[in-house]
Amino acid sequence: MSSSVFVPQIVAEPALAQLPVRYHAVRQQTEELCRPLLPEDTVVQPMLDVSPPKWHLAHTTWFFETFLLREYLTDYQVFHPDYAYLFNSYYNSLGSRVNRADRGTISRPALADVYAYRAHVDEHMARLLTTLAANDLPPSFAEIFELGLQHEQQHQELLVTDIKYILSTSPLAPAYKSAPKAAPTPEPTPATWLPVAGGVYRIGFEDEGFCFDNEKAPHDTYVADFSLQNRLVTNGEYRQFMEAGGYHDFRYWLGEGWDLAQQAGWEAPLYWVQKEGVWHRFTHHGLQPIDWAAPVTHISFYEADAYAHWTGYRLATEQEWEIAARQFQPQIEAGNFLESNLLDPQPLPADADPEQCHQLLGDVWEWTYSAYHPYPGYERAAGALGEYNGKFMLNQLVLRGGSCATSASHIRLTYRNFFHADKRWQFTGIRLAR
Amino acid sequence: MSSSVFVPQIVAEPALAQLPVRYHAVRQQTEELCRPLLPEDTVVQPMLDVSPPKWHLAHTTWFFETFLLREYLTDYQVFHPDYAYLFNSYYNSLGSRVNRADRGTISRPALADVYAYRAHVDEHMARLLTTLAANDLPPSFAEIFELGLQHEQQHQELLVTDIKYILSTSPLAPAYKSAPKAAPTPEPTPATWLPVAGGVYRIGFEDEGFCFDNEKAPHDTYVADFSLQNRLVTNGEYRQFMEAGGYHDFRYWLGEGWDLAQQAGWEAPLYWVQKEGVWHRFTHHGLQPIDWAAPVTHISFYEADAYAHWTGYRLATEQEWEIAARQFQPQIEAGNFLESNLLDPQPLPADADPEQCHQLLGDVWEWTYSAYHPYPGYERAAGALGEYNGKFMLNQLVLRGGSCATSASHIRLTYRNFFHADKRWQFTGIRLAR
Amino acid sequence: MSSSVFVPQIVAEPALAQLPVRYHAVRQQTEELCRPLLPEDTVVQPMLDVSPPKWHLAHTTWFFETFLLREYLTDYQVFHPDYAYLFNSYYNSLGSRVNRADRGTISRPALADVYAYRAHVDEHMARLLTTLAANDLPPSFAEIFELGLQHEQQHQELLVTDIKYILSTSPLAPAYKSAPKAAPTPEPTPATWLPVAGGVYRIGFEDEGFCFDNEKAPHDTYVADFSLQNRLVTNGEYRQFMEAGGYHDFRYWLGEGWDLAQQAGWEAPLYWVQKEGVWHRFTHHGLQPIDWAAPVTHISFYEADAYAHWTGYRLATEQEWEIAARQFQPQIEAGNFLESNLLDPQPLPADADPEQCHQLLGDVWEWTYSAYHPYPGYERAAGALGEYNGKFMLNQLVLRGGSCATSASHIRLTYRNFFHADKRWQFTGIRLAR
Amino acid sequence: MSSSVFVPQIVAEPALAQLPVRYHAVRQQTEELCRPLLPEDTVVQPMLDVSPPKWHLAHTTWFFETFLLREYLTDYQVFHPDYAYLFNSYYNSLGSRVNRADRGTISRPALADVYAYRAHVDEHMARLLTTLAANDLPPSFAEIFELGLQHEQQHQELLVTDIKYILSTSPLAPAYKSAPKAAPTPEPTPATWLPVAGGVYRIGFEDEGFCFDNEKAPHDTYVADFSLQNRLVTNGEYRQFMEAGGYHDFRYWLGEGWDLAQQAGWEAPLYWVQKEGVWHRFTHHGLQPIDWAAPVTHISFYEADAYAHWTGYRLATEQEWEIAARQFQPQIEAGNFLESNLLDPQPLPADADPEQCHQLLGDVWEWTYSAYHPYPGYERAAGALGEYNGKFMLNQLVLRGGSCATSASHIRLTYRNFFHADKRWQFTGIRLAR
Repeated sequence: MSSSVFVPQIVAEPALAQLPVRYHAVRQQTEELCRPLLPEDTVVQPMLDVSPPKWHLAHTTWFFETFLLREYLTDYQVFHPDYAYLFNSYYNSLGSRVNRADRGTISRPALADVYAYRAHVDEHMARLLTTLAANDLPPSFAEIFELGLQHEQQHQELLVTDIKYILSTSPLAPAYKSAPKAAPTPEPTPATWLPVAGGVYRIGFEDEGFCFDNEKAPHDTYVADFSLQNRLVTNGEYRQFMEAGGYHDFRYWLGEGWDLAQQAGWEAPLYWVQKEGVWHRFTHHGLQPIDWAAPVTHISFYEADAYAHWTGYRLATEQEWEIAARQFQPQIEAGNFLESNLLDPQPLPADADPEQCHQLLGDVWEWTYSAYHPYPGYERAAGALGEYNGKFMLNQLVLRGGSCATSASHIRLTYRNFFHADKRWQFTGIRLAR
Repeated sequence: MSSSVFVPQIVAEPALAQLPVRYHAVRQQTEELCRPLLPEDTVVQPMLDVSPPKWHLAHTTWFFETFLLREYLTDYQVFHPDYAYLFNSYYNSLGSRVNRADRGTISRPALADVYAYRAHVDEHMARLLTTLAANDLPPSFAEIFELGLQHEQQHQELLVTDIKYILSTSPLAPAYKSAPKAAPTPEPTPATWLPVAGGVYRIGFEDEGFCFDNEKAPHDTYVADFSLQNRLVTNGEYRQFMEAGGYHDFRYWLGEGWDLAQQAGWEAPLYWVQKEGVWHRFTHHGLQPIDWAAPVTHISFYEADAYAHWTGYRLATEQEWEIAARQFQPQIEAGNFLESNLLDPQPLPADADPEQCHQLLGDVWEWTYSAYHPYPGYERAAGALGEYNGKFMLNQLVLRGGSCATSASHIRLTYRNFFHADKRWQFTGIRLAR
Repeated sequence: MSSSVFVPQIVAEPALAQLPVRYHAVRQQTEELCRPLLPEDTVVQPMLDVSPPKWHLAHTTWFFETFLLREYLTDYQVFHPDYAYLFNSYYNSLGSRVNRADRGTISRPALADVYAYRAHVDEHMARLLTTLAANDLPPSFAEIFELGLQHEQQHQELLVTDIKYILSTSPLAPAYKSAPKAAPTPEPTPATWLPVAGGVYRIGFEDEGFCFDNEKAPHDTYVADFSLQNRLVTNGEYRQFMEAGGYHDFRYWLGEGWDLAQQAGWEAPLYWVQKEGVWHRFTHHGLQPIDWAAPVTHISFYEADAYAHWTGYRLATEQEWEIAARQFQPQIEAGNFLESNLLDPQPLPADADPEQCHQLLGDVWEWTYSAYHPYPGYERAAGALGEYNGKFMLNQLVLRGGSCATSASHIRLTYRNFFHADKRWQFTGIRLAR
Repeated sequence: MSSSVFVPQIVAEPALAQLPVRYHAVRQQTEELCRPLLPEDTVVQPMLDVSPPKWHLAHTTWFFETFLLREYLTDYQVFHPDYAYLFNSYYNSLGSRVNRADRGTISRPALADVYAYRAHVDEHMARLLTTLAANDLPPSFAEIFELGLQHEQQHQELLVTDIKYILSTSPLAPAYKSAPKAAPTPEPTPATWLPVAGGVYRIGFEDEGFCFDNEKAPHDTYVADFSLQNRLVTNGEYRQFMEAGGYHDFRYWLGEGWDLAQQAGWEAPLYWVQKEGVWHRFTHHGLQPIDWAAPVTHISFYEADAYAHWTGYRLATEQEWEIAARQFQPQIEAGNFLESNLLDPQPLPADADPEQCHQLLGDVWEWTYSAYHPYPGYERAAGALGEYNGKFMLNQLVLRGGSCATSASHIRLTYRNFFHADKRWQFTGIRLAR
């Protein structure tokens, strides 16, 4: 197995020819996501987890400039000497930077300047890719190039969720885009249990192609017999928990979650509001009545776990999730990803087969009751990219499966996403296990 | 004397004809100040004291809508039902509102929407003024109308200082406007002491025309003999304090000021930075070398008081300041106000007479060692406007004389400005007394 | 007048003979106050303003050790090298020290060790006083000696109020001492207005004997005609304010006071609790039913000012208070001070003359609407004692007249006490002016 | 397997006769630990994790009163109605309670009152045990009785570490007890690697006797081949990490740990201080020179993990630790536990066999890189005791093996202790794995 951490093992000639195309596609997608925004929307940071869209646009660009242009393009001059300070996210190896909490207090460079920065870097990336095609492939280049694209896709998902949060803070409840025509809401598919036999299984990334270092090394793990539910928990089911007093009964909650919920006054998932006695959700399409058959989302791990407790079941571990997913083999094409352009988890169709496992990929990230710790044999890369994943491996939970804000080309069954237990602004949801 | 609190006692017919002109002039001035800004600049709030320019534009408009259009214009419909929540500053009488700390987290309404709001209100104000001309003058109308204009002028000053702070937070140090041609810097005028005889004097507003309620009632006060310095303390003089270790010697400081200075790491006035060993200041014209003959500014009361201690002198009280000012009779026309468009305090000309009292009006607000308390006989107005001044009368210091960011038409010898002792983002400065 | 700041101008031979007696009396009084305490009571600090009694016992001793024994007693060895770090309060001149917030986290030295420290210092003070009697009086000795005693008397008052607060935090509501027999409560004396003619008056300390530096220099001041109420506001009157919704109507409040009251959930003075529907107060005698004719106490300036607003009157300035007091000449002997041992403000007797001014001295400190600023001509002393008063002269209010926790030998008509506007744990109260 | 969670499955007749003896022994041990303390030491809380010893004494007593006397002793009257409020730790089921942060601000009840409370409860427990002997054993009684004792033993360990912290905050560095005679320090035993073969193993409690609910259910787990070091990391080895700049090189650290270490200014383990250039540690015997061959202790998980990173190795998981321990079968009798009365981890003897696994039990709790999560099949008990463990199962790390402050009768190979990653005041240490 390769000793490198981010791993497209082979970039063959034809693949090389595809690099500019792929680069262009990913970079365009980012700008596409920002197109509906006003300049005003791109500078604010209404909470610490959210970054201003302008910052995302620049930071992803800084990544290519720092790790590729400065390393591989002869005589490259940085676009602006202060941008590294402004747009470095968390790389201690790369010097001091704006405090995360201050990202929303800095109006300049202007949005137009950031687009000029993107154009400058894109132009030089094009030049670099041309040069490379004519030469020997530098070791590690392809790896970092692919990482830059995957990194930008991660920020695309953050853009989607950050934009939602930003727009939500205005009492005007502005729509990011107009709502799709509402289909008649089906009855939710009956919940069933799909068993998986216990035993020793291999998990972790072992294919060719790209994966993050945290998916390695592939290794054996033992699980006992378990079952997963065939679909995600719906808004309607979650409302029953609320109506049963779930938010006011400490017995269902982890201690830190209970304290937080009380102090923050949580009574429902993020973005739920009652308007004239009817529950609505703030969405990318403005305030909308809740579709009770759709998967519940924007809940913290604490809420997911409390809900599971209340039902008498539990959340899966990440090992269980991956073993089940390898068995059920969900099709990426069937999933509700960023490409569907719906920007919201969707109810199952009326004819969904209750004996199949649905929604494993797309719709919402599924909280697991697994700490985000290093896999056996995990090693941090040397240099700045060693800070990419490894230093976050404590006090966070693993989420699996991708969401409606994830690119279909960015997800894998082995993908390990991770957030702190209190986070609610991502498209997070619940699948029950037992 | 009128029992009303904000007091243009007489608005005669010809004066009435002037109202639309004056209204237009003040409102235009506000927009003029915002013209050099990008939309990005108008939404951020890099510290609690600063409000986003977009907010200032809307809040001043909300003031006219709330206190005049809704009261006096028949059938007036508010521009948007949520704007009162968004743009009320601190009037408890008028309901709940956005937390001050959150003003910079809300991107919508867009800047263009706020300009539309201004146009809507301006159009209806024009209609209202026309109507009024044809009718009897409603009691109190003229008073509130004038208050609305004075209020907007106060926010113009805040716009100037808030914009400066906003632009300063970027490492790019962007200029709000290009710098005026630098004149050769004169030597500072020698500092002399101008004596004022002790005795009982009358202070407070007693003319015709407008004043704020906090300038009333005029009343007698006793002062002993004292002297004021003939000019403001210069940057060069203040640098001597710095070089003498003033920021590291607690003996010169008030206790709370010392603790704050240590904790915040103050070593110089706000906006001073060393660049390649040379002191510069961030200004509306970007980063500029310091003019040592110009008045020092952007200092807290604590620094002003520590400086005075170090010299062996002291700050004046507001009573002393007003008594001296009534005696020295400075000319408003000679002062460096907003209209000079310099946006920075200026050194005295080479031929300034050392026996005259200079810079009493304009350049910088002069910290006095007087608490901002009610004058004898002060009464809060009834209703929401009673919250305008009275409720702030504790824990703040009075400043006198106006600054280079104040409109010349907005200042008086009796004007009482007020800030907490730790504030540095206003154009504040020092005049010594003994 | 002497150029020294703490000023017993003459200490004649016979006076010198009295020093050991006076020293002993004051020191004994401190220990007497602590006698009812358990060791457990002497170490805790339930809020920042409160210091542990053990700390008071040691700090007052450190004062004599530092300023007298180390200066004037040949070959004196400090009791323990770490005690200066532990028991210095706020003198930057004298080096680093325990954070104020940590005073209640340190269990050692034990209480017994602190009493040994007191005995050690007392013994050496006795030796020093003997030596002095046989020699020439060192300049400034008598002044600092007297300051040490006055300083200890200030801490006696703090001991009384800190002990009350400490005991109040236990749900057991323990009594510091048994309650005096309750006299039948009289009807409150009718409130009347006592006029004082306006004019120029002299205020500030000008007698012989001791005063603090902040009472100097005596100077002229002008006041307009005013009236004071003949007595303090009672619990019964204050309850009317409460019942009229005073705590829920922002119109009566200063802005910062309103925000604080809302956030802290104030609904009544400190120590008031309802028990089975009846108002009680926690006192040094445990929980007691409220005497409605007694003066209200344990209120912040914000509450005092809001109450005054609600009545339509106001608080006096410190100038008015002192001018009136000099005119009404209250007798110290008639006041309810520490020596009465009642530890609570008392109702006026049934036969109190409504045309006399009562309770000016003793019972409660009266909030004035005057900032604690330097008097004209005030100068800080050189050296560490220059930190005694001057550095606190901002953001605090002056209180006048002493309380039931003040020693009768410690009060003067010119005495300027001072606290921040939010403080409630002292015996503070209200007298109305107009 | 029993459905109860705390599980002494059988309490036979003879065992029953032992209950009073065992009860007495555990209760006495607690008081023995507090005997060297002054009353002053028993009330303070110098940081949030520490509880005042008086509180521990009372809380353990409240446990027996609440869960046994009130349930099983007919007509039992609680000692004091307010004690439940004062001495409930975290049981939401049992009502409101003093904020954890306020435990050190309450001086009453006095220490003597708490001892009276203990005597009262002990006397009634004796009566209850007598009664029971004569009757049928109530279901669940024995289980809760044993839990009460184990609970008190947990608080004994906390008493040891909290007392150490409390005494450490005084600059006097007082000794809790006199130091044992220092033996000549041996050279550290060479570090070797002890291999364990991978495979599926059973872990979790499956014996008879008591265990906590978090050790259940026993279950299979898979590990790959691994090795553990034969002994704990020593102070000398850790000093090498310090001298190599380990505290200043972010590459070895988890992100949150790095931020914390920088902010808190960590440069060495807790309690290490340099005195005249020589490293000392504060211990229960006062300040002592460091024994370089002794195990390093009082380090956070962050430091343990950074140290492991620096060596190129890692920490074990809790599964690995338990599997290895079951294989190496350490003897409890050989461990350094509370009963040794040394209160500090000890160096290995000079003749320790490097091929044996040492110090698995006792000396220090060993940080594992395993989140404290529920075991497969874990279930919370019903009622208040369901809050004992389960609600803490997030954001904490498992520690294994017990320490010099743990009772030998309280430890098991399956025991799961848990703390947040930043905690340093417990006897925590490092064993390397690879």
